[in-house]
Amino acid sequence: MLYNPIPITRSTKKRSSSIVRAQKEVVLDPPHTNSSSQATRLAVSLSNLLHLHIEAPQRTEDLHFSKRVTSHDIEEKYSAPTKSPKEVISSKWHEIHGSSDWENLLDPLHPWLRREIIKYGEFAQATYDAFDFDSFSEYCGSCRYNKNKLFDELGLNQNGYKVTGYIYAMSHMEIPRWLERSRLADTWSKDSNWIGYVACSDDEETRRIGRRDILVAWRGTVAPSEWYEDFQRELEPIGHGDDHHARVEHGFLSIHTSKSESTRYNKSSASEQAIREIRKLVNLYRDRGEEVSLTITGHSLGGALALLNAHEASSTFPNLPISVISFGAPRVGNSAFRDELHQKGVKTLRVVVKQDIVPKMPGLVFNERLERFDEHITGALDWVYTHVGAELKLDVQSSPYLKRGFNLLGFHMTETYLHLVDGFLSTRSNFRVDAKRDVALVNKSCDMLVDELRVPRSWYQLANRGLVCNEYGRWVKPRRNPEDIPSPIGGGH
Amino acid sequence: MLYNPIPITRSTKKRSSSIVRAQKEVVLDPPHTNSSSQATRLAVSLSNLLHLHIEAPQRTEDLHFSKRVTSHDIEEKYSAPTKSPKEVISSKWHEIHGSSDWENLLDPLHPWLRREIIKYGEFAQATYDAFDFDSFSEYCGSCRYNKNKLFDELGLNQNGYKVTGYIYAMSHMEIPRWLERSRLADTWSKDSNWIGYVACSDDEETRRIGRRDILVAWRGTVAPSEWYEDFQRELEPIGHGDDHHARVEHGFLSIHTSKSESTRYNKSSASEQAIREIRKLVNLYRDRGEEVSLTITGHSLGGALALLNAHEASSTFPNLPISVISFGAPRVGNSAFRDELHQKGVKTLRVVVKQDIVPKMPGLVFNERLERFDEHITGALDWVYTHVGAELKLDVQSSPYLKRGFNLLGFHMTETYLHLVDGFLSTRSNFRVDAKRDVALVNKSCDMLVDELRVPRSWYQLANRGLVCNEYGRWVKPRRNPEDIPSPIGGGH
Repeated sequence: MLYNPIPITRSTKKRSSSIVRAQKEVVLDPPHTNSSSQATRLAVSLSNLLHLHIEAPQRTEDLHFSKRVTSHDIEEKYSAPTKSPKEVISSKWHEIHGSSDWENLLDPLHPWLRREIIKYGEFAQATYDAFDFDSFSEYCGSCRYNKNKLFDELGLNQNGYKVTGYIYAMSHMEIPRWLERSRLADTWSKDSNWIGYVACSDDEETRRIGRRDILVAWRGTVAPSEWYEDFQRELEPIGHGDDHHARVEHGFLSIHTSKSESTRYNKSSASEQAIREIRKLVNLYRDRGEEVSLTITGHSLGGALALLNAHEASSTFPNLPISVISFGAPRVGNSAFRDELHQKGVKTLRVVVKQDIVPKMPGLVFNERLERFDEHITGALDWVYTHVGAELKLDVQSSPYLKRGFNLLGFHMTETYLHLVDGFLSTRSNFRVDAKRDVALVNKSCDMLVDELRVPRSWYQLANRGLVCNEYGRWVKPRRNPEDIPSPIGGGH
Repeated sequence: MLYNPIPITRSTKKRSSSIVRAQKEVVLDPPHTNSSSQATRLAVSLSNLLHLHIEAPQRTEDLHFSKRVTSHDIEEKYSAPTKSPKEVISSKWHEIHGSSDWENLLDPLHPWLRREIIKYGEFAQATYDAFDFDSFSEYCGSCRYNKNKLFDELGLNQNGYKVTGYIYAMSHMEIPRWLERSRLADTWSKDSNWIGYVACSDDEETRRIGRRDILVAWRGTVAPSEWYEDFQRELEPIGHGDDHHARVEHGFLSIHTSKSESTRYNKSSASEQAIREIRKLVNLYRDRGEEVSLTITGHSLGGALALLNAHEASSTFPNLPISVISFGAPRVGNSAFRDELHQKGVKTLRVVVKQDIVPKMPGLVFNERLERFDEHITGALDWVYTHVGAELKLDVQSSPYLKRGFNLLGFHMTETYLHLVDGFLSTRSNFRVDAKRDVALVNKSCDMLVDELRVPRSWYQLANRGLVCNEYGRWVKPRRNPEDIPSPIGGGH
């Protein structure tokens, strides 16, 4: 069998990145069938349960759309830049990363902060875009590219960071549908999945932000309805001291800390791998006399892992400024966990879409609102899930580009979050007129954009699911490029 | 907006064709959901109704697979040729096209006939592969390529035919989900769909088969469960005479004969367009003193239209040898319709997969088996649907490459048919060991291949659903190549 590179879509030389598909088709509406109706019913019942008050789908909406966005507007936007210009933000960096708990920066949203949130959100999204979801691939569950070309392949090379190491995770617990596993017998790993990466700002970005920023991005999952079933579990103590009551969700902790000598990629846990890589970078740049910071990001489950990682890092590196920027993350632990993070100076900005149900979980019933009640009623608060840090709340209904109907997954997608951040001015303003991010990205893996935009649903896909026609006229799966085959040596490939 | 050609997957220069996707994802099994269970239940209940006696899905099947096909076998096949060598068949052409009603040619299947059946089946499949199913395309419902490059684009240039004209159809009847329509306001046509094409053998193929063969290929639909609801209608008289009782299914006839002066593409009906093009070619080559034949093919609804076309052509061109090779076609008319076709010398070979329910329709209840009963019981046979011609019966269970479970659509797909034809030796033999056709093609738009083959399900798809990233970093739908934009002048583009 010949090796054939995966075909890529590239229109001009100017854009040097090749953007290739992860087979992340979560919302699939077969043409001519009504497959989404079941999902809608589930969404409605969940929404009612949670008192989300989501608007019912408006059938007349399309008629009104022309008043909001016209075809002409869209055509004009085709040639507009997709990013705000970069500005030197070193003077305000500490505030942007939460030194004052983002007071007076969120509403209205400071443009420098908006740009940074999107930068970190794109790093979180990269963990999905590069993930091999193909169950017929022997590398299912790994990253499709080696660390040196990840950002190139995803078009993120302009963000000014270099990947230094990959993180792998396993779980001793049976967490249904968390682990992506190949259907083949001979695979790169039977136990572990690629769960994220560590990166570091390059010299130019370091000058712009005023410090060497170490980044950790954690991959999440994209199936909230399963979370609903799977993560309603009990809290488990975290940390080493005996004198505190910090507890976190069992399943999240298991993914973060599980390891086994019999595996290739998790002889050390995800937590240990991340800390090891951070330490290496902290030492390297502190030795050079540079100021160093740590920013941790993640979407969904990835946001939960980001908090656990921040908790661990804050104990390990007491003087390192640590901030977490999470997207659609669920509650992770109890109020003692929250208090420990605050006390250790971890700054957390949670970006939350009002209609997304994942940030309501776990602890749909037992959450921080109970703190208002007398402790006699609620019992020890050790057992109540609590959110951490400041919140940037977004509303699907603020965007004229998004459909109004229920969309359980669409509301939760990182790309929906980034679109809403891009358009957010303040809770009292309309969607930002000069929002620059490419709106088409929203539909990468869902069907959230109004029809008038003419963007196909769930369009992020490989030509012929990666099959190519060989010289004999047979459709075959090319072998993976040898340099992109995972290797456990040196913290991932 | 820039024009960007649709990205194509091509591995070597040797294969000059580019094989591009029609968005024909009919069976879509979202990962991690059980979406197919409803379809399975429907299939089970239909199968029981029809006494099909389809095997229940075997969970242990995969374990036994290694005895049938090994990984090694598959790897070896990657470099095997995909076609039998071409042989000069002019001496046997009349028999291959049914002069003796295919007696002694079907069981065992004559290798020359097998090759010809596959040739015509590939022409039928081309009507799906090139169809624009994209409801956000202004050209939804048209062919994606102009007639001069259709076979090139689909890799059919080696079959030895040239397309001479396109056929468009409309229907005055409301036939649910038949017409593919753009969701946009400004479209190439609001009423018509591309329904097929007329082609003609080139000089080399003409020498090989011993005559100038005119080919008509009709496009079908691929949703049997909808047929089940939609086509249980009444029979309608066909033809001009008063002295006969030939009747055919209402909906099929409507698609074949509807026309309207207010449309761009159906000022003449599909039937008239086909006859006009056939006449042009018959006159052209008869004037040159050549022997001319007409072969009509189609899958599913396309097979029904092929019969109607043959009926019309046999009246129009009394001395022209006419044969129909259909795949998974439903019953079309009553026994008088069948008798007229026989009488006029139309030779019909129906290729039928035993497990496919479409050939059982319409007339699930009132079909030709009733002829066995006394006419007093069944009433006038005018009202009973009857199959026409000879039958080549195939069995899904004959192939070691196919899954055993229910698959309503998989059983019906043209590619499944062609795979089974390719492997058929005789009713008493096992699947042909030296079958050459690429097995991966079966999964183009369904999930029929056993997992061990490692072929993804429904893999026939465009990269990023046709979106490309422009020089500004925006994902946009390229305009269609001007030469591929439909035009009603000259019988289609």
